[in-house]
Amino acid sequence: MRGAHTIPAMREQDIMAVITSQRRLTDPRVLLGPGDDLAALLLQRQGGGGALLLGVDQVIDGLHVHAHAVSWDRIGRKAVHRSLSDVAAMAGRPLATLAAVVVPTSAEVAEIEALCSGLNAAATAWEAPLVGGDVAIQRDAGGPLTISVTVLATADEALGPVSRGGGRAGDVLLVTGHLGGSLKPDGTGHHLDFIPRVDEAHAAADLLGESLHAMIDISDGLGRDAARLAAASGLQAQINMARLPLRAGAGAMDALQDGEDYELLMAVDARATVPASLEGRHGRCPLTVIGSLGTWEASTHRVVVTEPGGTQLDGSKFGWDHG
Amino acid sequence: MRGAHTIPAMREQDIMAVITSQRRLTDPRVLLGPGDDLAALLLQRQGGGGALLLGVDQVIDGLHVHAHAVSWDRIGRKAVHRSLSDVAAMAGRPLATLAAVVVPTSAEVAEIEALCSGLNAAATAWEAPLVGGDVAIQRDAGGPLTISVTVLATADEALGPVSRGGGRAGDVLLVTGHLGGSLKPDGTGHHLDFIPRVDEAHAAADLLGESLHAMIDISDGLGRDAARLAAASGLQAQINMARLPLRAGAGAMDALQDGEDYELLMAVDARATVPASLEGRHGRCPLTVIGSLGTWEASTHRVVVTEPGGTQLDGSKFGWDHG
Repeated sequence: MRGAHTIPAMREQDIMAVITSQRRLTDPRVLLGPGDDLAALLLQRQGGGGALLLGVDQVIDGLHVHAHAVSWDRIGRKAVHRSLSDVAAMAGRPLATLAAVVVPTSAEVAEIEALCSGLNAAATAWEAPLVGGDVAIQRDAGGPLTISVTVLATADEALGPVSRGGGRAGDVLLVTGHLGGSLKPDGTGHHLDFIPRVDEAHAAADLLGESLHAMIDISDGLGRDAARLAAASGLQAQINMARLPLRAGAGAMDALQDGEDYELLMAVDARATVPASLEGRHGRCPLTVIGSLGTWEASTHRVVVTEPGGTQLDGSKFGWDHG
Repeated sequence: MRGAHTIPAMREQDIMAVITSQRRLTDPRVLLGPGDDLAALLLQRQGGGGALLLGVDQVIDGLHVHAHAVSWDRIGRKAVHRSLSDVAAMAGRPLATLAAVVVPTSAEVAEIEALCSGLNAAATAWEAPLVGGDVAIQRDAGGPLTISVTVLATADEALGPVSRGGGRAGDVLLVTGHLGGSLKPDGTGHHLDFIPRVDEAHAAADLLGESLHAMIDISDGLGRDAARLAAASGLQAQINMARLPLRAGAGAMDALQDGEDYELLMAVDARATVPASLEGRHGRCPLTVIGSLGTWEASTHRVVVTEPGGTQLDGSKFGWDHG
């Protein structure tokens, strides 16, 4: 990894590995460091009852949105909702947001107003008020619209932060909502208009309690994100392709690899009573059993995807690496 | 401000005004919203003893650094130190940091390693561990190195957050260290290598107690930042140009307008005993009386700068708007 390698040879995951490898987080206040959906801190003045959750995520024109194709209020909303999806994945309660924006030189005032309106409206709607920010203007015409949103949340009082790494052998894997086809050819679609599963995560935490072992949100594709949950739990995942809940127009391969579903993947004790759906502020969404966690010595795959005909695929290869 | 105006016609302050005008922060958890050095939150489980401080700041190649001219560990360090300077300005204690980075396509692996090393080293040295982050790669060759650092801190237990707006008529204005000439022609200088005045802020809070009425860090130039403190306090500032503590090679006009000093400007009760210097972990720095707060009906300037000959200048015009 050393030497005069330029970036096109690296993937963003590789860069994150460089960063993470340099971490020496021995601070006793850090309950969870980098590597999960959010970090978790224990404030000294707390009795240990609830950790503070925090994380940052970016939305960049050309990578996560096409700023010329959609109204900027939807871009602002997406930027906040992406961070809230990480809060959902920890079963946290949103507390506040911060936004840092770099505006392209070609932007119009009305676009910036719409962007700010979208950021504020989403943050307010989810009780995570935008309490601070920073704005800069790109120096060169080539610089894209860049938004980073930091989110703060508090962990569930009873469960604490629900991490990726709590899965146990025999757990069932459940997914909220429908998967695949999140990006339409015109740049719009579910990836812009999704609802973060904050309420559904709380409902699951309330209904399942300690049986809710691990959780992650599906941002980079079910295959890749299931691999992250399985790896953090020290297990393999098996997924039954025929059981995947598909978005209208999407196939099972789309569900595995498209990403930007922002649905929740949960590992739950197999003895728990699992509801068929979960209540959110915008209605109920289905909860579907798609597989299980365990160890299968016959396969070296982190995620063993079984096709209807019985063929097994390496699911951890399905998905994308967009940072 | 509406219509198809493009960005070159706006300054970043104007954009911030657009954003702030849309804010409706009625959330009882928000003690201080946008507009100060950091926001302040009261967590519900706290007895009110100490607020959580948080803010985000950016470092962008071409605007705040020249990435081709300096080693990237210094860029990482500057990005963290800029945020810590805001912590100092509130007399806060650093708690944690998060970094979001967009890497240009031309970056080398060794540069990214150096950047991460600088971010981590600075965060660790100031007890603000880097607990999370996000990395993306620019899509186009024109996209610059972009770093946003979020900082969390806790307010001083006795004083709470020391805001910009607490200044009172008759207060003396004090400044730490020396001002002006922060940027050398080769791109290096104080703006890269400054020490955030976190320790000095604590020393001032301990020594001055309730007599420390208001504080801001000087990032955009003494003139402009003094205007912010004065405006937030509903007063005018008067500054005696002959008293400004100058960095070697800098003149009084440099001290007023160069910015990136990252020194502290304090408004302190005139009856308090003011020390001549403050202790930090890297030595003592001088504390200089440069003026006072009040109302001067003879002048409409927010900041009245008096030259040695007696001429009065509008100090609020001195400084720059780099977001």
